[in-house]
Amino acid sequence: MFKAIVSASTLRDSLDAVSVLVEECKIRLNEEELSIRAVDPANVGMVDLTLEAAAFESYEADGGVIGVNLTRLEEVAGMANADDLIHLELDEETRKLHIECEGLSYTLALIDPDSIRQEPDIPDLDLPAEIVLEGAQLSRGITAADMVSDHIRLRVDESAETFHIEAEGDTDDVDLQLESEDLIDLTAGPADSLFSLDYLKDMNKAIASDAEVRVELGEEFPVKLHYEFAEGLGKVTFMLAPRIQSE
Amino acid sequence: MFKAIVSASTLRDSLDAVSVLVEECKIRLNEEELSIRAVDPANVGMVDLTLEAAAFESYEADGGVIGVNLTRLEEVAGMANADDLIHLELDEETRKLHIECEGLSYTLALIDPDSIRQEPDIPDLDLPAEIVLEGAQLSRGITAADMVSDHIRLRVDESAETFHIEAEGDTDDVDLQLESEDLIDLTAGPADSLFSLDYLKDMNKAIASDAEVRVELGEEFPVKLHYEFAEGLGKVTFMLAPRIQSE
Amino acid sequence: MFKAIVSASTLRDSLDAVSVLVEECKIRLNEEELSIRAVDPANVGMVDLTLEAAAFESYEADGGVIGVNLTRLEEVAGMANADDLIHLELDEETRKLHIECEGLSYTLALIDPDSIRQEPDIPDLDLPAEIVLEGAQLSRGITAADMVSDHIRLRVDESAETFHIEAEGDTDDVDLQLESEDLIDLTAGPADSLFSLDYLKDMNKAIASDAEVRVELGEEFPVKLHYEFAEGLGKVTFMLAPRIQSE
Repeated sequence: MFKAIVSASTLRDSLDAVSVLVEECKIRLNEEELSIRAVDPANVGMVDLTLEAAAFESYEADGGVIGVNLTRLEEVAGMANADDLIHLELDEETRKLHIECEGLSYTLALIDPDSIRQEPDIPDLDLPAEIVLEGAQLSRGITAADMVSDHIRLRVDESAETFHIEAEGDTDDVDLQLESEDLIDLTAGPADSLFSLDYLKDMNKAIASDAEVRVELGEEFPVKLHYEFAEGLGKVTFMLAPRIQSE
Repeated sequence: MFKAIVSASTLRDSLDAVSVLVEECKIRLNEEELSIRAVDPANVGMVDLTLEAAAFESYEADGGVIGVNLTRLEEVAGMANADDLIHLELDEETRKLHIECEGLSYTLALIDPDSIRQEPDIPDLDLPAEIVLEGAQLSRGITAADMVSDHIRLRVDESAETFHIEAEGDTDDVDLQLESEDLIDLTAGPADSLFSLDYLKDMNKAIASDAEVRVELGEEFPVKLHYEFAEGLGKVTFMLAPRIQSE
Repeated sequence: MFKAIVSASTLRDSLDAVSVLVEECKIRLNEEELSIRAVDPANVGMVDLTLEAAAFESYEADGGVIGVNLTRLEEVAGMANADDLIHLELDEETRKLHIECEGLSYTLALIDPDSIRQEPDIPDLDLPAEIVLEGAQLSRGITAADMVSDHIRLRVDESAETFHIEAEGDTDDVDLQLESEDLIDLTAGPADSLFSLDYLKDMNKAIASDAEVRVELGEEFPVKLHYEFAEGLGKVTFMLAPRIQSE
């Protein structure tokens, strides 16, 4: 059983976070929250999303799992205005999701959850450095890195207490140096890892420029990016595996 | 003889209604009004447009017919600001149309009217249902239908007094249900017809979102869409042939 | 030695003027001003740009010459907001240009100036007519000409004291006639020349629509376009060779 009403903007923010990595996903409809975990086909990027029942206008669920085509669902949510309320109701018998908004009904055929890639276990990592910054700053570093390379290096300078977003191209280099005053918070620690720029660009697309992004970082370790949406009732964690540094 | 002055926005609204169906057309320059009738090459969609002399700043004509390349004429009209006045004058000898606006002169070579597809006779149909709605509502239904199919069904539910814009895809369905309160007016009657979405999308492009669209509908019959522009001095009728319902 | 601070908008206006003709250029870092001269590979269009030291927040140079990839430099300048200050510093040893803006450092590898096409000598021409007009008027004529032809004719009617931007297509013609009241200034004289529209379109892209453009024109002679930016502290001259009139 699943029956819920949610604003179009909250639904879109949820779907966007997952669709940057996969086209189909399982949605867990727990009693207290809706949750999604997914990993991209190459096993490089993962996402863990939860949206509390309180983020909905109304929410009833009893623990089922559905499989959805994210692209389709995003298109439907995209037709509504940000403040429009979207009604969702699962038809258990036909395995279809009924979506209704301002007189428009959409019947979405669900996908067998067993045919969807297994949900990843996102490991607990005790990463030594933590940087909290605005989404806009992260975007700036990613855009700059993209001018010269397809890799990006995230690094903390422990003595200077600065966070660096860097890229080395064949001839040109880029370094965005963010000092304590540019950051919301910094816990310095040994941290220096290289990542695929394509993945980070995609993840960054889902992050609002005024979101507070918490970055957990280590040495040649995966990075974790945490941010919230829907006034804190929605939470996203991205995890991205490092590239081996070629020096 | 033809000599007229008209606002760029009125000229553009006129041309747009016709160019969604054809690239060339005959324009009848009657004493009381300018009029255009055209049918697309596949004989599926027709348009009938009239623009009264009063819609012009000044208008003199004596019943001639000219053939024009609509794409060219739209480009020229597109260069002006909405409120700019466009001067049109026919040179009978050279068979060219002189267009002038804010110091810019454009000499448009006309096309031999005999080389242009014959103007259609748009039949009188006594269609049992009539729906009047805002252009924006029609757009919404067309956009939704386009997510799942390349056909669109327009239907009146006589007992519920509702108008439905529907589409059936391979797996997903869409239904925009408009009740009396969502409509400007409804005359219920037996009406249920299927149409090619491509044509309706094109016709819809010419209709302003705040225009009042009068839809005449029957059972497996052509649909007629009527709307006005230029403060009621311009009138457009689109007619679209039905597709055979495949059940 | 070269070390300077300049607003992003001034740097972008400078680079834009040159990048419409070439992808790489030499920049002369004189004591009193920065200057660039370049000619396109076909030897048809030339640009001469100077930016006075006073246009910079701070400026120190001793006459060196550097070779730069304009596309790269434009991308870097494009990341900053219009009012952001960009710090430029030449590293003579590594032959790299350090660019810094709001915490972002970019190290740009320079190009050997000897590998860049030689700077042209822009000839002094005593052209008989001079037209001063707004960039927006020039744009309008170019856009209109582009509808019918890939050549454009600039002409002064001495007796009528009008300036004409004209184009002749296979079937259609365009004539933008600008009278004294449409122009900022006009010195009439025998002037009628034909130009490649592609070049003039590119040059026009660099000219702000509210810039005052001084056009020097003759009979089958090159045209010179002069305009200023950075509150008069930056000056650009474009020169474009004529096409032979085919009559």
